[in-house]
Amino acid sequence: MATNLLEDYPWVQTPLIVGAPMRLISLASLAVEISKAGGLGFLASAEDQRNLQAHLEEALKLLQGTSLSTANNTLPIGIGFLNWGADLSIALPLIQRYRPAAIWLFGPRTVEDLTQWTRKAREATGRATKVWVQIGSVVEALKVCKACEPDVLVVQGADAGGHGLAQSASIVPGVPEVDDALSAARNEGSLAAVPLIIAAGGIADGRGVAAAMALGAQGAVLGTRYLAAEEAVIAKGYRQEVIRVSDGGQTTLRTSLYDRLRGTTSWPPQYNARGILNMSYWDGVGGMAFEENERLYREAMNAGDDGWGPEGRMTTYVGANVGLVTKVQSAKEITEEVRQQAKDVIRRLYA
Amino acid sequence: MATNLLEDYPWVQTPLIVGAPMRLISLASLAVEISKAGGLGFLASAEDQRNLQAHLEEALKLLQGTSLSTANNTLPIGIGFLNWGADLSIALPLIQRYRPAAIWLFGPRTVEDLTQWTRKAREATGRATKVWVQIGSVVEALKVCKACEPDVLVVQGADAGGHGLAQSASIVPGVPEVDDALSAARNEGSLAAVPLIIAAGGIADGRGVAAAMALGAQGAVLGTRYLAAEEAVIAKGYRQEVIRVSDGGQTTLRTSLYDRLRGTTSWPPQYNARGILNMSYWDGVGGMAFEENERLYREAMNAGDDGWGPEGRMTTYVGANVGLVTKVQSAKEITEEVRQQAKDVIRRLYA
Repeated sequence: MATNLLEDYPWVQTPLIVGAPMRLISLASLAVEISKAGGLGFLASAEDQRNLQAHLEEALKLLQGTSLSTANNTLPIGIGFLNWGADLSIALPLIQRYRPAAIWLFGPRTVEDLTQWTRKAREATGRATKVWVQIGSVVEALKVCKACEPDVLVVQGADAGGHGLAQSASIVPGVPEVDDALSAARNEGSLAAVPLIIAAGGIADGRGVAAAMALGAQGAVLGTRYLAAEEAVIAKGYRQEVIRVSDGGQTTLRTSLYDRLRGTTSWPPQYNARGILNMSYWDGVGGMAFEENERLYREAMNAGDDGWGPEGRMTTYVGANVGLVTKVQSAKEITEEVRQQAKDVIRRLYA
Repeated sequence: MATNLLEDYPWVQTPLIVGAPMRLISLASLAVEISKAGGLGFLASAEDQRNLQAHLEEALKLLQGTSLSTANNTLPIGIGFLNWGADLSIALPLIQRYRPAAIWLFGPRTVEDLTQWTRKAREATGRATKVWVQIGSVVEALKVCKACEPDVLVVQGADAGGHGLAQSASIVPGVPEVDDALSAARNEGSLAAVPLIIAAGGIADGRGVAAAMALGAQGAVLGTRYLAAEEAVIAKGYRQEVIRVSDGGQTTLRTSLYDRLRGTTSWPPQYNARGILNMSYWDGVGGMAFEENERLYREAMNAGDDGWGPEGRMTTYVGANVGLVTKVQSAKEITEEVRQQAKDVIRRLYA
């Protein structure tokens, strides 16, 4: 299992720290720095893959002269796709040409969409590019694994920031139950192979990473923590909120309101997103007409960094773990610090 | 830290497994069997403490002839109180007389209520009875610790079954952030002492226990898993649902509907409860008038065990980890199996 990942990604160190592909935020520099620090960075493709080739070219340039050796001659970063908006005919030539270490599929309209992407991507690179699929429930895990046999299943829990299933458990029950269900399916013969499981949602430091491993995951995804990375492409006002806000169980919520205010209405209906409760939210629950709320949101967009903050209206997607993110650091520092802390936690537990 | 707990409760074995005080379900037999297996069982007091003395007498009888030695000559089980309904003048003489190893306070109307219970209980037993307080957010943790300096803080995450804060993070961010916030408050001098942290919510087996320890907890509470204990006082129909239902992120939800249908309307407004989605729920979201839903609920109450199940209406409070509970076992088997699995997980992680 861990062996398998290390064979595919010979530069990674354990425990494996993965940088979430955050739309418009996780671009070449963040992804490359995470991989250079012994993790696996993902470059987020926008839903329509605009500029994806330019970002891949930038990643190539940033990787020049580094010592990241890759098995199968792949690019030592992954690409995340939002399947509901992604166009395979645009993605495929880029996958074939740049040979990312992984593609991470999420948010398809149908499971058949995943099957097609998986098959085509595997053909395009002779299976050098590994297929990761993100799910949020046990039923979804079984359906996806039977349909397309991904190499890696990302099990996302309810604490996750940004988009995910509107209803889900955290990784505490989620990872073990998915693990058990996949093993049972394989033993019954209804599943040919069990993918690696990587946990996502609520993990911000080495304690979370060690917990994810205890639950049965072979690695952990960090999203919110990397919002505070120097390399994240993020507005100053947004990042200040990531640092300022604590007690995410109280100060963030899963809702579809922010998507609606932003005019992002194409997500399949089972998804919504976790963000910081702001004036848009409070006015919404207070009964303000949507049109007025939308007008005020557009005004806030023109306020620059002042559009964020306690009195702000700008959407601030973060996980329920936002309170664990307290300073801006380089992606290298974050990755190395989290990995070392996870090792220390495991050593302390054993002692 | 763990040392401290082991001094107070010399019969417990690490990692510490705690049986949640589940109202009307965790009575003398379940609590005593958990403690006899090296855990710490809690006897649930009903909100009005009816029959509490009878349950304590039964526990005493069940403990006769066992070898559970206790420091401070306490009863080797705890008592859980629902503070919004509990009467200190009834509880106090019982605490003084039976000297439980711990009292677990939860759901007060005000933090002053906790302060008074803590002070009086400590006076009554010369601090032999340890005070545990359950919270669900970082703000609440700080407030409670400053107000009454509990010995143990139970940090409950969103996956928990039954009652808890309507809004909260899971233990994945919750436990580390509470831990950090309490340490910071102590270092600043605004908190005299930091309590032990015990994690609750979503933990059903040794993987969850090991994860809780990795997150910084010194023990783990199991509730839903003990619903399937032979000693739980639970209707057959309810227990069958606990065994049958899986994928709790999809099949359970936090709601106040079930309380309202049952006429349980005294919980402070910040709480609701997680239960299995049943016909009452679906009819409720489908627009059925509350009175009609209530009438059908009362009918279901007369159907005995048939009132539960896929077409049932009886309230079935469970955690999002219900899918990890797959068989009925004795409390002893559950406690020993979970503890051993936690040790195995930690050993595997280290290796």
